[in-house]
Amino acid sequence: MLRRIAEFGQVGRDPAGGVTRLALTDADREGRDRFVAWLKAASLEVRVDDGGNITGLTPAGEDPPILVGSHLDSVRSGGPHDGVLGVTAGLGVVEALAGATRHRLGAVAFTGEEGARFRPALLGSALAVGAIPPADLHARRDDDGQTFGHELRRIGYLGSAANRPNRAAAYLELHVEQGPVLEHHGARLGVVQGIIGMRWYEVRVAGAAGHAGASPMAARRDALAAAARMIVAVQEVATASDDALLATVGRCRVEPDVQNVIPAMATFSLDLRGADPAELDAGEQRLRARFAQVAADQGCDLQVAVLWDSPPVAFDAAVRAAITEAATALGVHALPLWSGPSHDARMMATVAPAGMIFVPSLGGVSHSPHERTADADLALGARALLEAVRRLDGQLPTA
Amino acid sequence: MLRRIAEFGQVGRDPAGGVTRLALTDADREGRDRFVAWLKAASLEVRVDDGGNITGLTPAGEDPPILVGSHLDSVRSGGPHDGVLGVTAGLGVVEALAGATRHRLGAVAFTGEEGARFRPALLGSALAVGAIPPADLHARRDDDGQTFGHELRRIGYLGSAANRPNRAAAYLELHVEQGPVLEHHGARLGVVQGIIGMRWYEVRVAGAAGHAGASPMAARRDALAAAARMIVAVQEVATASDDALLATVGRCRVEPDVQNVIPAMATFSLDLRGADPAELDAGEQRLRARFAQVAADQGCDLQVAVLWDSPPVAFDAAVRAAITEAATALGVHALPLWSGPSHDARMMATVAPAGMIFVPSLGGVSHSPHERTADADLALGARALLEAVRRLDGQLPTA
Repeated sequence: MLRRIAEFGQVGRDPAGGVTRLALTDADREGRDRFVAWLKAASLEVRVDDGGNITGLTPAGEDPPILVGSHLDSVRSGGPHDGVLGVTAGLGVVEALAGATRHRLGAVAFTGEEGARFRPALLGSALAVGAIPPADLHARRDDDGQTFGHELRRIGYLGSAANRPNRAAAYLELHVEQGPVLEHHGARLGVVQGIIGMRWYEVRVAGAAGHAGASPMAARRDALAAAARMIVAVQEVATASDDALLATVGRCRVEPDVQNVIPAMATFSLDLRGADPAELDAGEQRLRARFAQVAADQGCDLQVAVLWDSPPVAFDAAVRAAITEAATALGVHALPLWSGPSHDARMMATVAPAGMIFVPSLGGVSHSPHERTADADLALGARALLEAVRRLDGQLPTA
Repeated sequence: MLRRIAEFGQVGRDPAGGVTRLALTDADREGRDRFVAWLKAASLEVRVDDGGNITGLTPAGEDPPILVGSHLDSVRSGGPHDGVLGVTAGLGVVEALAGATRHRLGAVAFTGEEGARFRPALLGSALAVGAIPPADLHARRDDDGQTFGHELRRIGYLGSAANRPNRAAAYLELHVEQGPVLEHHGARLGVVQGIIGMRWYEVRVAGAAGHAGASPMAARRDALAAAARMIVAVQEVATASDDALLATVGRCRVEPDVQNVIPAMATFSLDLRGADPAELDAGEQRLRARFAQVAADQGCDLQVAVLWDSPPVAFDAAVRAAITEAATALGVHALPLWSGPSHDARMMATVAPAGMIFVPSLGGVSHSPHERTADADLALGARALLEAVRRLDGQLPTA
């Protein structure tokens, strides 16, 4: 697995030392070709679906299969382990257990998990479980106007709807944490309780342009000054929640964006997350109230649009228990934690018992060429994945 | 004059209903050609200098001349009066008084006052008075990489250094206020005391990127959250000064500018203005201290770069007195006020007694298609300009 991860680190390697393997690019094709070659070398049955999701199944065993996997695409200048760890570990588990399990086993690589080229994220797994219709998926365009469908055909990975990995006795995914929690607790493994809920907003603050040298301070309706107070409120409300809520303003645009012109418009994104829907509701209400007060104080108009509302998803209790026991069998404590980032397991959880294992991200660094997990932890995660699959294989009902 | 202003409103007219007559574009050439045709029709001697500044001089009278003028370039999608008022009123005054004054008179149109294409502002008048060497001016590039020198030759307005309007018995400029002060005081004329000082800064706040869903609030070093607190401080410090200071953050950029990534970097502009250098110093120190405190609190690094420091310039007492008396003779009170925006008169004040007359901007709107001044006020401003020139003509020493 470590050798395969190292190989993948060269696929889409960029000048910054990261990997840029955006979905359905030539680099993505090169990675897929490599994965398929491994599947064939392991005598697995290769299935490609109409979203480009690839599954390699053991020939024998009871259906539905136990699936293990993740994704092969990356963000722009990402790190070596995000996604690739779960796919290569999954393949390793399938190879190691092939012929030795009651269930068929399958290694899965989902398309376009990151949402870095075609938006939003989780496109491949969303198609697999029926959360997005194929016509909608294929019509999605990247920033250059190319469609998902065109690019999927171009790289030769348009398969059949019948091949979607949407029936599984269980789905397990090993992934790097992408945050500092495991490291902070000195834990080498995490058993993920679920994916926290996420709401994306766009906040537009409209004031009035004016000359920076000719407008008395009291006469201004400065959209950025108002937005800045709202951004401060975002940090304050989330910090006061004691991490029941995470809130982030990642984007901010000013118009007309000229040094000596009072901003007429400021637009910022808001990413609000939490495991408890009631906390999310309360946080949203607190923020809306703070925003409205700031807008009134500053003489600005306010629009808050909800772009995306993804409720929390709890993972299957039996899968979580299997992971915890697997870790114990390896002599390690698996820390229970919620995932802030979303993952393909979130989609798979809608059609099968699903769960995830996290390994520590050094310094919590993610989506960066500096993303790293210690080799020993990568290997430990893969062993825990194998042990968890073995346990589930003995427990799960078959079709 | 009103007819000429209406004609100019069609030169560079844009779909938004504004005028876009950026310096040294084809639209600027069209405006220049029109101005030169008027100068020739009025039998004025046309001089073009090596910055493209155009002067139309009466043939007779004592040197140095009394110059009146402004600029013909506009910002992107600007209004009909900014600059054009001062040029057309100046030409009207020269035409009306030609042959009836002791001094020669000259109508001037300066190049590239706005700084909207080639930066910074006041380029033509800066060349005229020797504040910028011609080689430096000609080498400046617009955002498309074209040089000032190339574009000046291309539109046929590269003249001689000997033609610079750098010797004058006085320089007067009529301009729209670009702010709400005259309107607020119910005044129809303003006698400008000077140009307030201006300092431009770039503030860079460096934090650390992180996943919006995986980073506990307390562990973050969010560059935008820190910048937002600094932007709030800018507004607070200026507001507390009771308009001794004006402070504006007009630009703000975030990196990587992704919805679900904690900003690693935030960069914002700061425009700080005031008539009193001591107040400017004190304001800068207060802001630097607030910024440093925020950066320390938020675990971010801070860089504050001074991009431009333009000290306050007081206009000539005799010119100011002539304007005040001219207004009184017209039965109007001229409100003394400082100009926040800079003007070509700021440069001309370094080589000659200079002064400015303001007329009200409706709603204080400026640099916008909605910029407007009532026709009656435009005409009153032109009459005050004429009266002031007549008064100065009788008082000023000649060479």
